[in-house]
Order: sequence, then structure tokens, then C-alpha cells
Amino acid sequence: MADGDLGAPDKRARSGRSARRESRIGGAGGVKRPYIVRNIPTYDILSDESLSRIEATADRILAEIGIELRDDAIAMQLYKQAGAKVTPISDDVWNLRFEPGMLREILKTAPAEFTQHARNPANNVRIGGKNVVFAPSYGSPFVMDLDKGRRYGTIEDFQNFVRLAQTSPWLHHSGGTVCEPTDVPVNKRHLDMVYAHIRYSDRAFLGSITAPERAEDSVEMCRILFGADFVDQNCVVMGNFNTTSPLVLDGVTTAGIRAYAGANQGSIHLPFLLGGAVAPLTTAGMVAQGLAESMASCALTQLVRPGSPAILASFFSSMSLRSGSPTFGTPEPAIGSLAMGQLARRLNLPLRCAGNFSTSKLPDGQAMQQSMMSMMSAVQGGANYVLHSAGFLDGLLSMSYEKMVMDMDMCGALHAYLDGMAVDDDALAFDALAELGPGQHLFSTQHTLRHYETAYWDSALDDNQPWETWDEQGGIDSAKRANTRWKKLLNEYEAPALDEGKDDALRDFIARRKTAVQDMWY
Amino acid sequence: MADGDLGAPDKRARSGRSARRESRIGGAGGVKRPYIVRNIPTYDILSDESLSRIEATADRILAEIGIELRDDAIAMQLYKQAGAKVTPISDDVWNLRFEPGMLREILKTAPAEFTQHARNPANNVRIGGKNVVFAPSYGSPFVMDLDKGRRYGTIEDFQNFVRLAQTSPWLHHSGGTVCEPTDVPVNKRHLDMVYAHIRYSDRAFLGSITAPERAEDSVEMCRILFGADFVDQNCVVMGNFNTTSPLVLDGVTTAGIRAYAGANQGSIHLPFLLGGAVAPLTTAGMVAQGLAESMASCALTQLVRPGSPAILASFFSSMSLRSGSPTFGTPEPAIGSLAMGQLARRLNLPLRCAGNFSTSKLPDGQAMQQSMMSMMSAVQGGANYVLHSAGFLDGLLSMSYEKMVMDMDMCGALHAYLDGMAVDDDALAFDALAELGPGQHLFSTQHTLRHYETAYWDSALDDNQPWETWDEQGGIDSAKRANTRWKKLLNEYEAPALDEGKDDALRDFIARRKTAVQDMWY
Repeated sequence: MADGDLGAPDKRARSGRSARRESRIGGAGGVKRPYIVRNIPTYDILSDESLSRIEATADRILAEIGIELRDDAIAMQLYKQAGAKVTPISDDVWNLRFEPGMLREILKTAPAEFTQHARNPANNVRIGGKNVVFAPSYGSPFVMDLDKGRRYGTIEDFQNFVRLAQTSPWLHHSGGTVCEPTDVPVNKRHLDMVYAHIRYSDRAFLGSITAPERAEDSVEMCRILFGADFVDQNCVVMGNFNTTSPLVLDGVTTAGIRAYAGANQGSIHLPFLLGGAVAPLTTAGMVAQGLAESMASCALTQLVRPGSPAILASFFSSMSLRSGSPTFGTPEPAIGSLAMGQLARRLNLPLRCAGNFSTSKLPDGQAMQQSMMSMMSAVQGGANYVLHSAGFLDGLLSMSYEKMVMDMDMCGALHAYLDGMAVDDDALAFDALAELGPGQHLFSTQHTLRHYETAYWDSALDDNQPWETWDEQGGIDSAKRANTRWKKLLNEYEAPALDEGKDDALRDFIARRKTAVQDMWY
Repeated sequence: MADGDLGAPDKRARSGRSARRESRIGGAGGVKRPYIVRNIPTYDILSDESLSRIEATADRILAEIGIELRDDAIAMQLYKQAGAKVTPISDDVWNLRFEPGMLREILKTAPAEFTQHARNPANNVRIGGKNVVFAPSYGSPFVMDLDKGRRYGTIEDFQNFVRLAQTSPWLHHSGGTVCEPTDVPVNKRHLDMVYAHIRYSDRAFLGSITAPERAEDSVEMCRILFGADFVDQNCVVMGNFNTTSPLVLDGVTTAGIRAYAGANQGSIHLPFLLGGAVAPLTTAGMVAQGLAESMASCALTQLVRPGSPAILASFFSSMSLRSGSPTFGTPEPAIGSLAMGQLARRLNLPLRCAGNFSTSKLPDGQAMQQSMMSMMSAVQGGANYVLHSAGFLDGLLSMSYEKMVMDMDMCGALHAYLDGMAVDDDALAFDALAELGPGQHLFSTQHTLRHYETAYWDSALDDNQPWETWDEQGGIDSAKRANTRWKKLLNEYEAPALDEGKDDALRDFIARRKTAVQDMWY
């Protein structure tokens, strides 16, 4: 018998050799699972005593140092009414202190699991619990590929990354700012970004958070797509909100959080912690601070609208001792992410954590080694929503076309990994060994014939040929194969059908919004 | 307080900033830890019920199908005297069947932990329990580097890999057949290999297993080095023995095992299982078979000399469904290795498992992604002796100079990973956040100044610079940096001192053995 669950619902429903074979082969033709239901336990590295000490430190930070809130009197009032001790620092800045346990109590109304709806209901994702959702990387101003090198991202790049994600059976969510479309005015690019997710993907996505009105626009476009009543009752979009570490919430962020929560939409509450700069260098301290900041930010959602979906989050990075530069995909943050998973489960909240992090400037060995160390901490630690699952290079400054498809393929391997191991009579395969006995190859046993098409996840990108064959075919490395592959995927991409009436309404909404205000470039 | 142990003894003994800083920086100047004492728990993925089912299947394989023993009547008698049911198949071939639990009972005399001595006692390794020992890859006929490509290995390559391993603070053991020295006659190369380990390294190493007399020669050379009495009472060399899967023990192997165990030396008992070829395609079946074969092989040591050190082992690989080629560093074997760790702990035996596996033909992204997935399963699964920790490419057919130094660096990251997270007042760092308060960077806090040299493991190979700096310096990828680095390490390498009398005696022994017989090339 298998340990734990059997997989996501659609996987359980499918059967037969061809369906199972398809579901394990990478590439655009693969059968998509809407999300992963983990079938192996989480990797719990800290004792209850250590976890309690981290929680007590977070509580002490919140009670004795406090969170500084800037430029949002409405949020200040909400925290104050909930019991926070508010000390004015200036007219628009307040220090908020929370008695130990207060935020935990507030967070009890937040759902442990929720569904984010996609315009294609087959792609709805369930966030929280044993579920794992992979989404592309988020927020890079630059893009790079092996042909053209590194340059500022454009809306065309943005659309390309949405298309690439859509082709992958191993991603589940279209993400958000897959790169900054720097050729579109700052105050209008959110419209083109949200439209690209809606038009070129049929998966769930993230909306804008860079200004409260852009958050409202994101929700409004979803109302056009899903209908206003549906949006009021269901999560169809989420915003990814960074705290201003250490220990600050700025008003643009809190107003955005209020916009999403008020509309019953999801929000992610992310301290981006670089040890030694905006957090302690020691991992336990970084985790305690991250927990404090994310709880304080999350709690606002419940003060606005109890029951609205919120995701606890952390982003840990380290520092090169030689250069002082931030480093990604290193061991200490991986350990921190595993601990964060334990803490999120104790809070009974969904978690966003880690991803395919790397400091490398190329899709090379360093990139994939660092990525795998970081990504393993996400999937083993029980992260439910893994932003930065594909494309991340250059310490998040660049989105790489090659890394995007390499990471997508790795996400496929992680599907098989999280499926764990079936332990039943068929899998134990006594009969397979008994059939021919000692010293006889198993190529022709019934067991092998029955399983050979489905037993192993098969990479669409890796080279697994004999050296001679590989050499005859040009001796291509994985980065160059990825270069060929992303072009092929884009070339073969077909946009999912979109209702013409809705498309027209969305375009009309965008056109009106764009003409209503002047372009802004900062 | 930290969860678990504090680290290896020598690490506990050292203190002070400079020692701690050195111990975390890669490269030849780093302070070496003789081995890792893990400070995080193992990753246990299977339930007790599933583990029991795998064990019951292994027992059933041993009782109902049996192990075929070839060409070793002495081993047959030992198994028979211990209670195995022996059925002759021909004059020199027997089927051995074992009642459920019989081998487990025999294995109770094998030590759960033991020390393998190095000629430099500071490099003695403790194998078993919470200890983790990294050794280079083993057995590739080819070597490769970016300059000269792939070619057959030579004794010069062999010596170079021993030297490279010796320079690394992140490997603990010199390994064995770091590549095949194909320019030395087959029946004499073991002498040059053992001598290279003794001469160019001062760490523990593996001896020859390809013929019983070569095993004896390996032990004899150790008697010259350590003294015969010391060797009789202590483990100073080990042999790495493969079963002939499925379910066969050949006489060369069992005679070699008898030679090592009879001399009280260590042995590793490795089924090399390729799913679909010599084992079932399903992971649970592969693990059950591996457990059965390794237990049967291990048990022989205790029949020869109860208490002699033996290591349970597994090597799992999968198959490309498209090409039929074996694949390495894939998810199913990683899951299998984690399960094998649980089974070894239930047997209370040390485990060798997984390593830096890859099918890639270059030290590229595929290589390091596959390596990390496989290597993580070794360190998380509780493997005690990790052969193939550095250099593995091309599905074990090639030893790569660049991958060797890339993997050595990764082993450094895994030191920091296995150290886990200290959770004490200093690490929780409340004071660091309180010192300047919300919104203030922590660069100048006392906590940061106190920790910045030691907080993070620092790669000697990764690029962590800003993109502009990296670009100005030529935009070098990690494989090319590794190419520069192995040449630098070899250039700076200095052989550890060796007693001249012992060196002369070893050379004399080798010369006599070499002249005693004709060269053989097969």
C-alpha cells in the first residue's frame, strides 16, 4: 500500500497505459496535473523545543520592538482596533506592538487551504495542506538568453514567458511579474501583464501590487473574466506583497493588501530577507524575523475580511563573505526554509517558500546545483505555493529563457519525487524476480513489460544517450539544448481559446484605463 | 540550543574566529574536518508498515528464490554451516536459501559503527551512526576534461584525482578506483593504485577487489604501512564488492570478501541495480532486492570473522523510456535511496548509498541538477559512506576533472547543510534587531560584526559577483572556472610526507610482485 494520498484528483481519475505514459513525459504534449498532492512526508529538521524558541522570539520582536507602519492610517486603525499598541512616530508613521499570541489569534480565521480558480476550471489550484503549486519566477528587470545576452525585459518577453509556462505540464500557475515589461509605462504595465496572463494562459495568476489602484484594476479585470459575484465569493487572483524589512510595512503595501483582502482575493506576505543587510546573519534569527513580519502582514487580511485567503511566506538569502554580494541557492537559507515549513504548519497556514534560486549569470552547473538545493527545500519543507519555480538567474535580476525550460523540466522530476514510492505487491515485484530467477535479466518479464512505459519519469531535456551517440550529434550541453527547446516550444505554442466577448471587454477596459492618465516612467 | 550533536570532535575542539572562518571557506587552505557528524535528522519517507513489507519481500526472495553462489566452495560451506539450505546446480554453482530472519541474526555481530584508520590519524574516519564520509567517484574507465575531451584513464590521471581529492577540505576519504589506469596491466594496476592512495593522500582508502590475490596484496601493503599487528586489530582498508545482480554472488567476489573480512578489514556490499535490466522497474521491488542481496553478501563477513566491519550498500539507477539507456540522478532512485537509509538503520548497519550521479557528458546544468538530487538523497537519507561524491559523469563511464572540483565544492555546501541550524539566544538574534530597530539595515550591528566572517559557507568556485563585474571579467561559466581551478589545485598540490623506510618497503613490495608474473591485459 502507498504511504499517504494517491495524488491529485485528476491523476486518480485517469487510468490506462497511454494516459499514465503521457503524464510522465515532459513537453507540451504531456497530460497536466493541476497541482501536486504530496505523497511523501515533509522534512522536519527542528525539534518542537527549537520551534517554540523561534516562535517566542518572533512574539518578542512583535511585542518589544514592534512593526513600523507607514502612510496608511486605515491599516493603523484596523490594527489598533484589534488590540495593537500604537505609538505615533510622526503624522504618518506608527509603531505597532502586539502582545504575544495576539496575531496568532487573529490568523485563526484565515483558511488553512483554499482554491484559486483559473479561467479553465481544470487548472484550478488548491493551496495549502499537502498541495504543491509551481509558478514561474517573479520580478526580474532583465531577461537573458544565449543568443542575445542580458537586456531589459519587454512586454514581448513577458508574453513569451507566460506562453512557455503554459506549455509546461510541470508548472501549475502562470505566476505574476514573470519579468518587468520595461517598455510599457510603469503606471500602465500592470494592465498589459494581467491581460497577458489571461490571454496567453488559462491558469491562475497573480495581479499587480505596485499601487492600490493597480491592485484594484487587477481585481476588476478578473471581475470581467469571471463575473463580479463569482469573484466576491471565490479567490481568482492573488497579490504578492513584500514587507519592507526589517520590520516595516509601507502604506502602498498595506493598501494593496486591503484591496485584495477586501475583494476576498488571495495575498502572499513575503519578507525578502538578506542576512546581514535586512535581517540577522544567523539563520534562526532570520527565520524568527521572517515569521514575525509575515504574521503581522497576513493578519491585516483577517482584519479587513475574516476568512480571506492569506499565504505566509519567506524568502531567505545569504551573503558572500568575500564580496558582500547576496547569494542564492546556498545551504543556510535551504535549512531556514525547511524550518519555515514547520512553523507554517504549526500556524495552520499555507506557505510560499524558496524556489529555483541561483546567483549564476548563466544556465550552467552552478545555476542548477544552487537551484536544486533551494527547490528541494521548498518541496521537502512543505511549501504550498512555490513562486520562482522556473527561470530564476542572476540573483533574481534576470529571467533566463534557457533556465526557464531547464527548471520546468526539473519541476517534472519533482512531480515523480513527490509521488514517493508505492509499496504494494505489484511494486514489490516478488514475481518479477521469481519468474526467471537468479542471474537472468528482467527485460522480458511480465512485470517489466507491464511497467516499462510508466515506471520512470522521463526528462524531455536531459541527454541520456550513450556518449558516442551524443558526440555524433554534436556534443551539445544542456544550456544549448534548452536554447533549442524554448524556441521550439514558443514556435509550437497555441493560445488557449478565450471567449471573444470577454476578450473585447478586457481590451476595452485596458484602453479606457490607459487613456485616462498620462504615462509615467518611474 | 542546537538540535542534536555539535559536530565532529575536531570541530568541537577548535574555537576562535580565524579557525571558524577557515573551516567554512573552500579550497586547499581550509581546515579539514575528518568527517561530518550530522546535526539534522534523516529524512524518513516510508511508514513502518511499508518498511516491514519491503523487509518481508527481501526475506521471501532469500527464502524462496535464493541467491546463486558460483565458484567458491569455501563460501558455500560457510553459508551451509550457518544454516543456509544449499541446492547444487552444478559442480561449482549452488543455490542458497535462507530462512526469514536468518541473515539478520548473523548480521548482529557486525559493528554499527567502526573507525577506518588513515595513515594520518587526524584523518581517521568513523563510519556508521550519525557520521557522513565523502569519497571520490569509483570505477570509470574514461576520464574527461574540457581541454582534451574523453579518453581512457591512465595512472597519471589516477594520481591526479587522488591529489585533487587530497586538496579538498570537503572530502574525507581518498576512495578507491578513482579511474581505471588502463595503461597499467590489469593484473598489476592494483599495486599502483594502492600505492598512489598511500603516497599522494594521507586519508583512508579502498583496496582492490578484482581478484582474491589483489585483495590480499592490498591488505599486505597496508601491513607494511601500518604494521601487521595494527592491521589485525583495526580497519585500515576496505574493499567495495558488487553482487552480480540479480541474486548472484560470484566466487571472485566472495573470495575477496573472505580476504578482507579474514584480515579484519572493511567491506562494502553493493548491488548495482538498473531497473528493468537486473532489478524490477518499480522502486519498492528494487529496494527489496537490493536489501536481500546486500544482506546475503554482508553476512559472509560475519561467517568468516564475527565483528569484522561490513557496510550495507545500494546503487539504484533508472532507465530512459525513450532510449533504454540507464539514467542517473533521477527522482525514483533518489526516493529509493531514502528508503534504503531507513532500512539500514533498522538493521543497525552502516550504509553506503547514492552519490553525485549524472548521465550528462559535460559538467553542465544537467550534470549538477542530477548530482544534487542524488547527493541530497545520500546525505538526507543517512548514508554513512558516500562513494561517488566527486567526479561522476557520463553514467559512471567517465571521471571528469571539472566535475571533480565542482562536486568537491558542493560537498562543502553539504557540510553547512548537515550542520543544520543553531537555535540559541545568539543565533535567535533578538538583540541584533533591537539594536537599531525597524527600518534600519543591520550591516553595522554588533551581531553582524561578530558573525559576518563565519555565518555562511562560502563557495570557492561559485560566481557571486554583480553581473557587471562578472561580465567584465569575461563572463565565464562554472565549467570553465572549474577547468581553471583543477589546474591551480594540481599546480599547488604538495604530497603529504611519507616515512622513507615505509615508502621504500612499499616500492620494493610492488617491484617484486610486478616481476613475479607476466603482464595481463584483460
